Amino acid sequence: MNPSQQRAFLSFQDHFEQLRHNRLFEWSVVAVIIFSALLAGAKTYDIPVSVSRTMVWLDYAITLFFLIEISIRFLGERRKRDFLKSGWNVFDTLIVIASLVPIEDSELAFVGRLLRIFRVLRMVSIIPELRHLLNSLLKALPQLSYVALMMFIIVYIFAAVGTSLFADINETLWGDIAVAMLTLFRVMTFEDWTDVMYETMAVYPLSWVFYLLFIFLNTFAFLNMLIGIVVNVMEQERQEAQQQLHKNDPTLHDVLHELQALKELVRQQTK
Amino acid sequence: MNPSQQRAFLSFQDHFEQLRHNRLFEWSVVAVIIFSALLAGAKTYDIPVSVSRTMVWLDYAITLFFLIEISIRFLGERRKRDFLKSGWNVFDTLIVIASLVPIEDSELAFVGRLLRIFRVLRMVSIIPELRHLLNSLLKALPQLSYVALMMFIIVYIFAAVGTSLFADINETLWGDIAVAMLTLFRVMTFEDWTDVMYETMAVYPLSWVFYLLFIFLNTFAFLNMLIGIVVNVMEQERQEAQQQLHKNDPTLHDVLHELQALKELVRQQTK
Amino acid sequence: MNPSQQRAFLSFQDHFEQLRHNRLFEWSVVAVIIFSALLAGAKTYDIPVSVSRTMVWLDYAITLFFLIEISIRFLGERRKRDFLKSGWNVFDTLIVIASLVPIEDSELAFVGRLLRIFRVLRMVSIIPELRHLLNSLLKALPQLSYVALMMFIIVYIFAAVGTSLFADINETLWGDIAVAMLTLFRVMTFEDWTDVMYETMAVYPLSWVFYLLFIFLNTFAFLNMLIGIVVNVMEQERQEAQQQLHKNDPTLHDVLHELQALKELVRQQTK
Amino acid sequence: MNPSQQRAFLSFQDHFEQLRHNRLFEWSVVAVIIFSALLAGAKTYDIPVSVSRTMVWLDYAITLFFLIEISIRFLGERRKRDFLKSGWNVFDTLIVIASLVPIEDSELAFVGRLLRIFRVLRMVSIIPELRHLLNSLLKALPQLSYVALMMFIIVYIFAAVGTSLFADINETLWGDIAVAMLTLFRVMTFEDWTDVMYETMAVYPLSWVFYLLFIFLNTFAFLNMLIGIVVNVMEQERQEAQQQLHKNDPTLHDVLHELQALKELVRQQTK
Repeated sequence: MNPSQQRAFLSFQDHFEQLRHNRLFEWSVVAVIIFSALLAGAKTYDIPVSVSRTMVWLDYAITLFFLIEISIRFLGERRKRDFLKSGWNVFDTLIVIASLVPIEDSELAFVGRLLRIFRVLRMVSIIPELRHLLNSLLKALPQLSYVALMMFIIVYIFAAVGTSLFADINETLWGDIAVAMLTLFRVMTFEDWTDVMYETMAVYPLSWVFYLLFIFLNTFAFLNMLIGIVVNVMEQERQEAQQQLHKNDPTLHDVLHELQALKELVRQQTK
Repeated sequence: MNPSQQRAFLSFQDHFEQLRHNRLFEWSVVAVIIFSALLAGAKTYDIPVSVSRTMVWLDYAITLFFLIEISIRFLGERRKRDFLKSGWNVFDTLIVIASLVPIEDSELAFVGRLLRIFRVLRMVSIIPELRHLLNSLLKALPQLSYVALMMFIIVYIFAAVGTSLFADINETLWGDIAVAMLTLFRVMTFEDWTDVMYETMAVYPLSWVFYLLFIFLNTFAFLNMLIGIVVNVMEQERQEAQQQLHKNDPTLHDVLHELQALKELVRQQTK
Repeated sequence: MNPSQQRAFLSFQDHFEQLRHNRLFEWSVVAVIIFSALLAGAKTYDIPVSVSRTMVWLDYAITLFFLIEISIRFLGERRKRDFLKSGWNVFDTLIVIASLVPIEDSELAFVGRLLRIFRVLRMVSIIPELRHLLNSLLKALPQLSYVALMMFIIVYIFAAVGTSLFADINETLWGDIAVAMLTLFRVMTFEDWTDVMYETMAVYPLSWVFYLLFIFLNTFAFLNMLIGIVVNVMEQERQEAQQQLHKNDPTLHDVLHELQALKELVRQQTK
Repeated sequence: MNPSQQRAFLSFQDHFEQLRHNRLFEWSVVAVIIFSALLAGAKTYDIPVSVSRTMVWLDYAITLFFLIEISIRFLGERRKRDFLKSGWNVFDTLIVIASLVPIEDSELAFVGRLLRIFRVLRMVSIIPELRHLLNSLLKALPQLSYVALMMFIIVYIFAAVGTSLFADINETLWGDIAVAMLTLFRVMTFEDWTDVMYETMAVYPLSWVFYLLFIFLNTFAFLNMLIGIVVNVMEQERQEAQQQLHKNDPTLHDVLHELQALKELVRQQTK
């Protein structure tokens, strides 16, 4: 590629990059995503065949639009290999390419429908505020995972004990450990938990201890988790704020240094 | 208008302004609003015709009182064009003027009744603490809107998937995407959500995954929103507090500046 | 009263004051309160007449003990008129004196039983940590009152609208404004709220808007209140901490002052 | 023990200590704990006799593994008496030793099963993050205990009043104080609380006051507790952060001290 060709190519790419950051382009992409979401929603209603046929054509149009959009994004990327480094670009590309596969086959029809629904998620990849929100959600995940593990252990132990005790009372609720865990999750959400309790209390009158202990332990662990996260997040914010605030300010070290220099000056003068 | 006329007018307006900020005036307005609220409430009971006729007259009296009150407020405003700049004044004026329209017509009777009920909202425009509270609620709105959008996207996707899967099981709960979104909002509030789940689990035994995933995602997004707002609000408070606290305090910059001046002085002396 | 008498009296009072702050005394009072609480609880069971008769005697004994205890507290108070200045002392005295009135009369029997139950509240007046907790609860009350008023206004308006719309659908839930407010409080706690909604949706298919708007407004107001209180409390704590921390520390003002003095000294030297 | 023997023993112990902190060792312990948890869960399903017999053997193998593991930990401890000072070691040892007791006896079968389930808790003693989490939970306990006591007093008083009033209406819900406390705990979790209320309102139309007062008091106490803990925890964090941040920084005291020294120097020079 000679320099002039390269220059032409660059300006060609610049064109795409400009287009990519064009507000009209961005808003039209958002509009098409919303339209595709509404289309996915409209399909859940009973619709006459004629409208249904139009919707298939609209679906093709949307897929085509997304294909062109992704291409523009790819061509607008200065370094092509960086394009797939961004998880969002990979997600967008996968969703669009997967939509290209025809879904006439009834077995894959559900997968195809799912794919069209997941296009709504492109909203998150397009709107920076939502992307930011999701990132902060993901950042909080490791903090949460250990509390989740703790609560899982609590539920597991209570489910094992619950199955041993109550399996004969109600097979549907306490039959095996998996079903018992679901029942305990229901108790955790306070959803008709007294029905579950009154049933076992008819056989074991003291079984309210089991439920109350479970509720207290979980509420306690949940509260602690909540507080832990609030404290952690605020601690981070505070440190960032402090660093930003005082970055360019002189410190007491500077003042002391200046004082020492002055002292030395006065001392020299004395001699 | 010659100066003496202008002076007379000013004192005339001062009179209204004084009246407007008079405590007795303010409390009597609050009292009339409470009375009008009670009247709106009393109408929901079965009342004899004679009392009902008295209530119509009381209603006229309240409307008249509010008309006079708004006029006093308007006349007490120093610059007339500022009056309608305040959203609260516009709200008050609209409510009062709309109450003047007769509501004999049975079709508009409901609108008239609504108007009388909304007069209770004047409480918020009169009591500064409530106005302050509402302002802080409105200030938090933009922060909330993106989380609300995120949760809406989650609900929309789950509703679309839910309709595809469960529409045949229960038409009332999962018939179309709108109904499915309402069902999922119900699951979000833990309201008899296990009834919904057990029904679909009878057909798809693994459908508990759908509900648990939905509950976890929403709880997680909600918690994150809560924490985000707390952190933001506290950050603002902290910054305001810091600025207020240290506004008049000398900074380390001042100290260093003074030190430099002193150094220069000693140096000059040395020469 | 001659000085020696006065001295004797003082030592007499000192004795009571000492007794009052004696740990054994305090713990025995707590023990008797707990015993009186258990007695009040035991009365709710079916008990044989013989035990019941013993319990009446125990009740007399507890009342006597409390009477002696209050007397010791009163005699141990250095300035008698300060005794009734403390709300807790007034509360304790009232509870004890009211218990002295015989409750044979069947009409007042319920009041007498209530009095005996309220003796459990003396726990709060005895244990300093609980007293401290209650004080902090009361301190938060004014902050809460305006939010409570706001939520009351929201409930009142929705109840008035709800009665207008749904009174014919379900008289028990929406019959008049008082009943409608109770129904809306139920919706606020998410207690079988969909049953209420589905019923009105059968007539007005769009009435879900009413419920969702109500739930969102209340959740929002409640969250805001929660956050507002957290922020306020923390702001107070922060300010107290800062004042305590830096009370005895020199300020930058002091440093600047010292520098100016030094400058003056150097200047004088130069002349 | 002569020095060379001691040296040999030390290196022998070092070997165990090294093994104890070996990552492969730690992960294999975690793996066996998870496997033992799955085994405990699997027993709740209907399993053929042949598999059941294998599971008994697997159970022996797990117990043996844990016995060896605890021995390695004990031998790897430098000072043997420190081993049982750690509560976690005591817990681990007890669980393992108790598992050695044969549980053929049908009466103790349930206890044996419980022991096997509690082995899942060894997860907490092995994973440092979970141990840390539990410690922070336990640290918050004393703060919580007084609020718990306060809420218990509220529930106790309302239960006593509730039994007096409603015992004749529904014996199952309000029969005695214990049952009434359980009913009130149910009301606290908003679980079908209106069913309880509507029942008593049929007899005492004003009994909604009882329930609403109870709900408000509890919500209020709970919120206050939550806020109190958040504030306390953050206050601690803040103080720790401040101490850590400024530990090595010079203070204004140092600056003032330096200034005084400088002043003295200038003064001496003047003479």
